Amino acid sequence: MSTIIIKIGGGRGIDPRDNAQEIARLISDGHRVVIVHGGSHETNELAEVLGHPAQTIVSPSGHESRRTDRRTMAIFMMSYCGKVNKTLVESLRSLDVNAVGLSGLDAGIWIGTRKGAIRSIEEGRTVIIRDDLSGRVDSVDADFLNTLLDAGRVPVLTPPAGTADGIAINVDADRAAAATAAVMNADELLLLSNVRGVLRDPSDPGSLLTEVSMQDFTIAEESAQGRMKNKVLAAREALEAGVSRVVIGSASGPDAIANARSGSGSVFTNGVYA
Amino acid sequence: MSTIIIKIGGGRGIDPRDNAQEIARLISDGHRVVIVHGGSHETNELAEVLGHPAQTIVSPSGHESRRTDRRTMAIFMMSYCGKVNKTLVESLRSLDVNAVGLSGLDAGIWIGTRKGAIRSIEEGRTVIIRDDLSGRVDSVDADFLNTLLDAGRVPVLTPPAGTADGIAINVDADRAAAATAAVMNADELLLLSNVRGVLRDPSDPGSLLTEVSMQDFTIAEESAQGRMKNKVLAAREALEAGVSRVVIGSASGPDAIANARSGSGSVFTNGVYA
Repeated sequence: MSTIIIKIGGGRGIDPRDNAQEIARLISDGHRVVIVHGGSHETNELAEVLGHPAQTIVSPSGHESRRTDRRTMAIFMMSYCGKVNKTLVESLRSLDVNAVGLSGLDAGIWIGTRKGAIRSIEEGRTVIIRDDLSGRVDSVDADFLNTLLDAGRVPVLTPPAGTADGIAINVDADRAAAATAAVMNADELLLLSNVRGVLRDPSDPGSLLTEVSMQDFTIAEESAQGRMKNKVLAAREALEAGVSRVVIGSASGPDAIANARSGSGSVFTNGVYA
Repeated sequence: MSTIIIKIGGGRGIDPRDNAQEIARLISDGHRVVIVHGGSHETNELAEVLGHPAQTIVSPSGHESRRTDRRTMAIFMMSYCGKVNKTLVESLRSLDVNAVGLSGLDAGIWIGTRKGAIRSIEEGRTVIIRDDLSGRVDSVDADFLNTLLDAGRVPVLTPPAGTADGIAINVDADRAAAATAAVMNADELLLLSNVRGVLRDPSDPGSLLTEVSMQDFTIAEESAQGRMKNKVLAAREALEAGVSRVVIGSASGPDAIANARSGSGSVFTNGVYA
């Protein structure tokens, strides 16, 4: 029996409900499972219709994040915590999984720090944004999650997190999943999305990095582009916190979770791999 | 120390965040509090913008409910479980209340039955609707809610509920709050909204029914129009299940909860009142 944290991305073409059957199987096999999901594509589409289209912040080092003003946060809550979270909970419950959907804000599950000033590259210039509602997770309430698991519930978590003062902040769901895996002493962290893993050369699908030990980390970090940067960073954070295995892999197909667990994708291990 | 269930409506002009300060005070005074909220006005506005405007079903006996097809349910989740729930949780957490926002679907908190065929009066004719995702709450998981309360969390609940098969169903939040009050052995159930209480004559603001015992129930039931019918029904269901006091009152103003507790509005009591 393992503790497995499964993050399912919210990018275009991914519907976490497609993974519900496999999740149900893991749970009926006796594993302790915590699900984390995104919702970026759904949020982008809703934001467009509501006349407040998504904006991406690109940091000087190339990290991408969502510009989150107060109105974006409300839209974010609608899609992440509303539609995506509850329809996934519904799918799981219809498969006899006693799922409970929560944001990281709820019950103080994910407590984080809001970013002060964010440097953003806009048309080649560096702009400082001071009112952004985004940040990073500093602590995860493992006791509360274990209370839920011990009561037979399967937590289905999603951003936002909350600050210690109770303000909702947009956090990267991959890194939040890594922080969750760390405090839960997880055996495995799966970061599943609409990409197959880390490509050494983003233009060459054949250049997938299949096994990455701590020694090779720099290669993965240098190869990762765009949103993949956060996944690789999440992998590093989980491994450094003691999670023994992280897989960045595809969320697609009926065996996506089994495939990732058996090594499809980029497999990150702590220490020298065999 | 009392157990108090507070339902805050989601009608036009009501923002449950305006009641957060009073809720925080009740909790710091040591009461066990469960919040239930609606979200109908938010949902109507969102549905309009998304091009799928709200439709109301009026039953032959005059009860009103929301027509809930699959697309409406997704919109409903966005506003009730997303925006309204999480912004209320945020307000409470910023006042040091350890709030946890959940739908009745989550963790099997509210399990109900989906309506089979619904009779709806449309332009004077009775129409049968068979695919509606609405129903009523049959059971409430008091153990789970008590686990949360014992862990120092304040549940903030909202529709949908779920069927035993895991399907999300739209349920009346007043009656769901009554069912929750019943299983929690609540001392008080407050049904707060944008109306002051039950008017004996809807056109006469001076005709407020102030105290209603079980013997007078028929008067209240005959007087109630539109959505007030569900509130009076909720009051009856709570009283019959052993809740000793139900108040239908206003959610407006900084002392709305205190006012309702001290008897503003329509006060329903089990047995003969003094």
